[in-house]
Amino acid sequence: MTALRVGIAGLGTVGAAVAKIIVENGAALASRCGRALQLTAVSARDRAKDRGVSLGAAEWFADPVKLAQSAPIDVFVELMGGEGDPAKAAVEAAIARGVPVITANKALLAHHGVALAKAAEAKGLALNYEAAVAGGIPIVKALREGLGANRVERVYGILNGTCNYILTTMESSGRSFADVLAEAQRLGYAEADPTFDIGGMDTAHKLCLLAAVAFGNAPALDEIHVEGIERVSPMDIMFAREFGFRIKLLGLASRVNGGIEQRVHPAMVPLGTPLADVDGVFNAVVADCNLAGKSVYEGRGAGAGPTASAVMSDVLDVARGVRLPTFGAPAVHIGRPKVASMGAHVGACYLRFTVIDRPGVIAVLSRCLADQSISIESMLQRSRSPGEAVPVVMITHEASELSMVKALSAVVATGVVTEQPCMIRMERF
Amino acid sequence: MTALRVGIAGLGTVGAAVAKIIVENGAALASRCGRALQLTAVSARDRAKDRGVSLGAAEWFADPVKLAQSAPIDVFVELMGGEGDPAKAAVEAAIARGVPVITANKALLAHHGVALAKAAEAKGLALNYEAAVAGGIPIVKALREGLGANRVERVYGILNGTCNYILTTMESSGRSFADVLAEAQRLGYAEADPTFDIGGMDTAHKLCLLAAVAFGNAPALDEIHVEGIERVSPMDIMFAREFGFRIKLLGLASRVNGGIEQRVHPAMVPLGTPLADVDGVFNAVVADCNLAGKSVYEGRGAGAGPTASAVMSDVLDVARGVRLPTFGAPAVHIGRPKVASMGAHVGACYLRFTVIDRPGVIAVLSRCLADQSISIESMLQRSRSPGEAVPVVMITHEASELSMVKALSAVVATGVVTEQPCMIRMERF
Repeated sequence: MTALRVGIAGLGTVGAAVAKIIVENGAALASRCGRALQLTAVSARDRAKDRGVSLGAAEWFADPVKLAQSAPIDVFVELMGGEGDPAKAAVEAAIARGVPVITANKALLAHHGVALAKAAEAKGLALNYEAAVAGGIPIVKALREGLGANRVERVYGILNGTCNYILTTMESSGRSFADVLAEAQRLGYAEADPTFDIGGMDTAHKLCLLAAVAFGNAPALDEIHVEGIERVSPMDIMFAREFGFRIKLLGLASRVNGGIEQRVHPAMVPLGTPLADVDGVFNAVVADCNLAGKSVYEGRGAGAGPTASAVMSDVLDVARGVRLPTFGAPAVHIGRPKVASMGAHVGACYLRFTVIDRPGVIAVLSRCLADQSISIESMLQRSRSPGEAVPVVMITHEASELSMVKALSAVVATGVVTEQPCMIRMERF
Repeated sequence: MTALRVGIAGLGTVGAAVAKIIVENGAALASRCGRALQLTAVSARDRAKDRGVSLGAAEWFADPVKLAQSAPIDVFVELMGGEGDPAKAAVEAAIARGVPVITANKALLAHHGVALAKAAEAKGLALNYEAAVAGGIPIVKALREGLGANRVERVYGILNGTCNYILTTMESSGRSFADVLAEAQRLGYAEADPTFDIGGMDTAHKLCLLAAVAFGNAPALDEIHVEGIERVSPMDIMFAREFGFRIKLLGLASRVNGGIEQRVHPAMVPLGTPLADVDGVFNAVVADCNLAGKSVYEGRGAGAGPTASAVMSDVLDVARGVRLPTFGAPAVHIGRPKVASMGAHVGACYLRFTVIDRPGVIAVLSRCLADQSISIESMLQRSRSPGEAVPVVMITHEASELSMVKALSAVVATGVVTEQPCMIRMERF
């Protein structure tokens, strides 16, 4: 069989790593996929830059859309990023021309995934994105194929290495969020503008793609309840530990009450469960399924090697002629999910109140919770300094999100707290 | 597209679960794989048995080989087990006739995998076996496809739920191996004849298949160094804990010194690493790769649901027309691995000596180790009862297996020990 001709748009660290694999191992990989791989076209902003790889005989395109439209390629690999053009225009051009597409672009798929999948599937083309979620972990393949006969009840995990690194380091060092973030930026683990990561949006993009392939519906980014880790304090991390939990930024999508609930927020995860032990820049995903039960997938969520590994997995599938619907089920059949509202979410919570320590304060707090039928599982009030602000920490039994919000408003209205109460949801697996 | 006609030979708990899924969800699964699934033929020993599933219009065959030879099927699912006939004859008959095969039969593939793969590949047929290794964890797919562009350096894990349940329970209860095994048999977690599981052969069968697909060579069952868990004592489990380790039965395959080293034995695993926390009947596999780095896969290793999930994953691939070489690379190209001898294996060890506590004993032990250039990292001698037998426990630095064996023989020859020394290899990940 003739070689599979690959065109790559975007030669950052991932693009350069993919190019290097194809140039250096493209012939050897024929034993894995039945045909050799050949890099025939590339596009990037700066032609002069040294990327540590000889681009061989690949044709250079200044314009990625031109590459997609006219280069001699059998597959188009989009590694530019960004939900709009030129990434979107280039992917559309490749599909229009009958060329399958591989992308690591979660924003593009979160916003335009169904339209692009419909276009690709109408032409019988693959549109693959293993690298868009959880880097080197082959989780899209696991959900779409390995667990393909299951009804997935819940899929959740740690999807952002930057946040996980910050939370892990805050716990091990006892330092503040701002301090650790600054260090992560110096070390290159966090972006100069870290908002997208620490605010939870990166996790939300990945979660909506995982949920789409798990539940067979369209990605619904705007239906996700998103909170970031900016307000997680060393004090909460310490209290979590005392209760036998660790704070992680989770993305969770579940079938509840006939709808799909999707949320991204810091959560208390029980020590001794797999997610609690996922440290540093690692990612992990858990799938709860009707047949297979619970399965856990852990690995490196970012970086040139792991992301290139995922891109190459998609390239090998295209070389083999494997062509699956982008989101598991045909795009023409999938619609937006019926949304389970966050107010109806039921769960236990960790609550921290900062109060002036005087008689009757606990009674006031308890009353506000009881009025919403929220009962307390355990309470902790460590240092007592009469007349000074001290933390009072509680773990509640399960209650609805709406009751919890009402109770916290009532607490604030009584005037017994000196700052906004802190609420962190607890997840038991 | 017409429905995929499925024939199943073997209707134990797994076969019945697969049949039920196809009969009840065969039409719905068309959205996952492009065509409906239909159960058209079955074979089992006892026709009268109630399996909790209506076999619908499926034709009954008393002889599984006849089913494979003549039933109206597009795929043959072999769930009888056993390395010989009728499983082997039935699989050969299906391939000879041009029908792809799915099997959960690790013994069949460990012994005859390459011959069967060659026959299947010569006819352009799939021979899939996701269910043969680690039940509900889609690890064959992960290694063959998801990590397909990687060079795998090492693949290892906990592959036998019976052993893991016994070791987990021994640790939590402090009870003896014999006692916990008897309980596991009562509970149905261990077979009436548990030799195959506790002796490590079940793990070895799975390991040789994992190694084959990871390294692209023929399964080499007879080259695996195999030790079981029969001699693991509560005392060793307790000492392991004190040193910060937990004892697990591992299967490990690695590239070392230009060859492949494969071994199955109880090992000390550091607390806080993923494998140490895999409890009860769960399985877990770790792959160390050049691109993706380390990735970990954990899930249920046995049971009707998880195993049926894996079988169905293979069925969906056949329905989609996906056809990969059985062991990742074409069977005509793969040979037996160059074997790295166990004597050359280098690692640290936990050693426990039972000695009569009298002056000079430690000096004798240390001398025997030093003579083989084995140095001691830490030592523990808990209870001192002069004149009585007491345990002396050591963790060594890295040394070759051959040196370790010589040192232990020398210790025995001195006459200072009252029973055979216990040696458990340490694994650091």
